[in-house]
Amino acid sequence: MAAAMLKRSSMMKSVVIGGLRMAAASRAYASVAVGSDIISAAPNVSLQKARTWDEGLSSKFSSTPLTDIFKAKKVVIFGLPGAFTGVCSSQHVPSYKNNIDKFKARGIDLVICVSVNDPYVMNGWAEKLLAKDAIEFYGDFDGSFHKSLDLTTNLSSALLGTRSHRWSAYVEDGKIKILNVEKVPSEFKAHLISIGGAKSFLGRKKRLINGLTDKQKELQRKFFEAIEKQELVECGTLGLKSNQCSAIAISIAIS
Amino acid sequence: MAAAMLKRSSMMKSVVIGGLRMAAASRAYASVAVGSDIISAAPNVSLQKARTWDEGLSSKFSSTPLTDIFKAKKVVIFGLPGAFTGVCSSQHVPSYKNNIDKFKARGIDLVICVSVNDPYVMNGWAEKLLAKDAIEFYGDFDGSFHKSLDLTTNLSSALLGTRSHRWSAYVEDGKIKILNVEKVPSEFKAHLISIGGAKSFLGRKKRLINGLTDKQKELQRKFFEAIEKQELVECGTLGLKSNQCSAIAISIAIS
Repeated sequence: MAAAMLKRSSMMKSVVIGGLRMAAASRAYASVAVGSDIISAAPNVSLQKARTWDEGLSSKFSSTPLTDIFKAKKVVIFGLPGAFTGVCSSQHVPSYKNNIDKFKARGIDLVICVSVNDPYVMNGWAEKLLAKDAIEFYGDFDGSFHKSLDLTTNLSSALLGTRSHRWSAYVEDGKIKILNVEKVPSEFKAHLISIGGAKSFLGRKKRLINGLTDKQKELQRKFFEAIEKQELVECGTLGLKSNQCSAIAISIAIS
Repeated sequence: MAAAMLKRSSMMKSVVIGGLRMAAASRAYASVAVGSDIISAAPNVSLQKARTWDEGLSSKFSSTPLTDIFKAKKVVIFGLPGAFTGVCSSQHVPSYKNNIDKFKARGIDLVICVSVNDPYVMNGWAEKLLAKDAIEFYGDFDGSFHKSLDLTTNLSSALLGTRSHRWSAYVEDGKIKILNVEKVPSEFKAHLISIGGAKSFLGRKKRLINGLTDKQKELQRKFFEAIEKQELVECGTLGLKSNQCSAIAISIAIS
């Protein structure tokens, strides 16, 4: 059931940024692609910054227009199917959080995590992950942001309802420079290598993660090979678990 | 805005249970009322027991039919607008949790907290409140349970979307014996005295809460008076804050 509902196709294309030719996953069917302006792709759409209920009250339940988030900024944004879902979600956030200084050192103004959840749930999850200082969490409580970008998917069979794909993007002054959209949620044991990492715009120098076992190093070698070939490879194909995949992807991102 | 959207009327009526005539809030417009069968009021509807994502996977994302929850059981069930919302939600759950032994001693098989959230968010919240051992938490991820009972309300102006009213019920073998539906969510600073407590079916002997200040005792006296008169009185009218109200209501419930 879950497999059937998740059958959507992705394709690879390469983009040139900063003189480097790089691999990026894109979707033929998305309403946005590399080159799109994320602000005009979702006109009149706002996101809701994570906050406690009391902060919500004192903020008069305000939302944040996309222009305030993206205009004149370099932003890494990643979305996932839900707060409190999956090992991969839990791994995904820390892999950004733990490397936030390296993102900042490379000129990234903001790293944002977004999900089709209300801002109080997002806040509860961010607090649990001890990630609020490093990452800005936003809710998309009615899904209007993800609907505008054609990034929604029906996850009712996983007791979630309409949520978003797992995706990540690098956005400069509103323009999408890199867009990765996962074909199959990692919770279903297949995780695309292109997701989670922002490898393309942060360079491609390889560095091993400290503490990897020999087997993991061998998996990582295969992983690098796949990137060299600009292949879109599922973690399952490489024998990787989704959390290993996420950790390796972010290792590439920051190297 | 919030006030406007929440204008709905409730009315009081009295019911006779166990030879005692008791006050209970009911709604003229609800699809269920005292005497309704909750199972047939929501046919083919299931709830989703709170669990971690990994437990979700190993359970094959199973749901629990209402008949499994209510058939041949004495159940106290309470619903609220959302996990991680409001001081009152945080106070509401502990007031049941901390008195669970007294509920059990009176023959209640289950105390259930339900909300229009997915079961993983419900689990995250239950864990944060340290309440999983005492109370069973269920998600109603697509709102179908609350829609069937006509208990939904649009809380988009509070960045929540379609959620449930704050409500509580006592249900014996599927039959609703007491139904309390809050007119105005406590988050908006008015909390009906009938909510939160299951005073009616647990008896009406009065007992002061330990540690109340003189002012709080005076408020409690007014509170008892209102119950004697079978009046539906908002906490605001009594000068009570919603968390005081919740604590006093449950004090009545267990006394």
